[in-house]
Amino acid sequence: MSLLVVGSVAFDAVETPFGKREKMLGGSATHFSISASYFTDVRVVGVVGGDFGTEEMSVFERHHVNTDDLERLSEGKTFFWRGRYDFDLNTAHTLDTQLNVFADFKPKLSDASLASRLVFLGNIQPELQHEVREQVRGAELVALDTMNYWIHTTREALVRAIRSVDLLIVNDAEVRQLADEPNLIRAARKVLSWGPRALVVKRGEYGAALFTAETYFAIPAYPLESVFDPTGAGDTFAGGFMGYLASQKTIDEGAMRRAMIFGSVMASFNVEEFGTERVQRLTHEEINERFRAFKQMTHFEEIPFARAVEQTK
Amino acid sequence: MSLLVVGSVAFDAVETPFGKREKMLGGSATHFSISASYFTDVRVVGVVGGDFGTEEMSVFERHHVNTDDLERLSEGKTFFWRGRYDFDLNTAHTLDTQLNVFADFKPKLSDASLASRLVFLGNIQPELQHEVREQVRGAELVALDTMNYWIHTTREALVRAIRSVDLLIVNDAEVRQLADEPNLIRAARKVLSWGPRALVVKRGEYGAALFTAETYFAIPAYPLESVFDPTGAGDTFAGGFMGYLASQKTIDEGAMRRAMIFGSVMASFNVEEFGTERVQRLTHEEINERFRAFKQMTHFEEIPFARAVEQTK
Repeated sequence: MSLLVVGSVAFDAVETPFGKREKMLGGSATHFSISASYFTDVRVVGVVGGDFGTEEMSVFERHHVNTDDLERLSEGKTFFWRGRYDFDLNTAHTLDTQLNVFADFKPKLSDASLASRLVFLGNIQPELQHEVREQVRGAELVALDTMNYWIHTTREALVRAIRSVDLLIVNDAEVRQLADEPNLIRAARKVLSWGPRALVVKRGEYGAALFTAETYFAIPAYPLESVFDPTGAGDTFAGGFMGYLASQKTIDEGAMRRAMIFGSVMASFNVEEFGTERVQRLTHEEINERFRAFKQMTHFEEIPFARAVEQTK
Repeated sequence: MSLLVVGSVAFDAVETPFGKREKMLGGSATHFSISASYFTDVRVVGVVGGDFGTEEMSVFERHHVNTDDLERLSEGKTFFWRGRYDFDLNTAHTLDTQLNVFADFKPKLSDASLASRLVFLGNIQPELQHEVREQVRGAELVALDTMNYWIHTTREALVRAIRSVDLLIVNDAEVRQLADEPNLIRAARKVLSWGPRALVVKRGEYGAALFTAETYFAIPAYPLESVFDPTGAGDTFAGGFMGYLASQKTIDEGAMRRAMIFGSVMASFNVEEFGTERVQRLTHEEINERFRAFKQMTHFEEIPFARAVEQTK
């Protein structure tokens, strides 16, 4: 009854208007698994190099993230990304990408990983996502993330991978690009028509939306007075979302909606400090507090309009 | 116990990728009052020229909008605006503005208007807004709208006008410009510190947010598969918002939150057709239906996180 994530484990160098880090733990599978670990048991499939030390491994250990399928190639170096954010923190400017051991990454799933109930295919080559998806046919729910790079370079393979999963988790711009349709609602309908039964759209400071064939759910973002480093916010959202779903016996619309809130809560913590620093030392009470804040900031009474009419006419 | 709006009554020429209109009823006070008329009694203070005919007046009449204070200068021509929207319907490109009789507009309030319970100061020169505000000292709630033009050209007068009202209703970009602060939450805090007890931020396709010193409320927009003509959406929102408030005996946080929904509902209808065409022929049942849809698309159960923890740890 566990959650599996396939994705990158990396070192990030990040510079924002508020400071910098030369080498910190990063990567989609890292952000995802630490976030999800607050809700369920997580297994990571990925690859690291000889420079990935005990200090980095201890972060996974402290969060009880299973790393049996985290391959270690001692001769190579870990995936490295260097980026910069300007005063407008919405756009990451990539300064350097060194794929290193990640260039030839072929996900290898142990029997335990193959038996996972929920699977998250992090942002990697669509062909690899599709291969993994084919191996976990017994999973109750398989979700996929991607990015504009794959939409532009391997569109066909990406659409094939999307057709094969249950859930797509992407950002606002990506779903419009994917569907080649500027209207988000129409873009969402189009992507759902390819096969997934649900679509989660991340909208940064504007919140997030959940689409199914019959339903629509949308929430604002948690109101933050300062965003420090947005790196990994999307994967942290996905980790909270999938982690919460994994903790639920039944994955229905109600559970999906609460998962949206928990995903947003986790992402809101992520951006408050560099990399995984804030999410690493969260407490359940802190998560609870923000979940309750979401209820408070979205609640209104459903008082029928007839009452207003009666009062005035 | 009525609602007063001071603003422009105009003729608009609009071109969008989906069609065009050479001369249709427009202006902030027009969109506002037609929208508000579904909830309460509205009075309009404005000015029109000799070209404003019985056909236009009959629109106000049909919606029981009181036009006693709508001045008519037979020698002059009505305010005229020509605009174009490209495929990205978010930005209006102004092609022509003829102020005509609106250039020397001095709002003249009859005793009935001076006795209004709620007042909306539409987007006009800040000095005029301030003058009107001084005349309606007995009003329970005075709201103000503005635009980037006044923020850039008459900032000081605008801030003085804002300091004197209870509520500011502006869009996302405007509140950031007003506060000279890119973070919306900080920008909102700053504007509230000037005096208004509430701030409504319209975010177009991303919804709307309501700020007070102690509370935050945010909602998504109604999901529309096509936006036809966004002209007047902001004023239509304000009309639904203020109109609903005027229908309520007590203007508290709960009423303000429901007013946000009704404002959004009215704006969602406005953009479906040219100008005021769609809003002119609404039914209460149609408004009700979208109000209920808002509840459905924002509702989630507040199930404490402890349950999730218990299940997994």
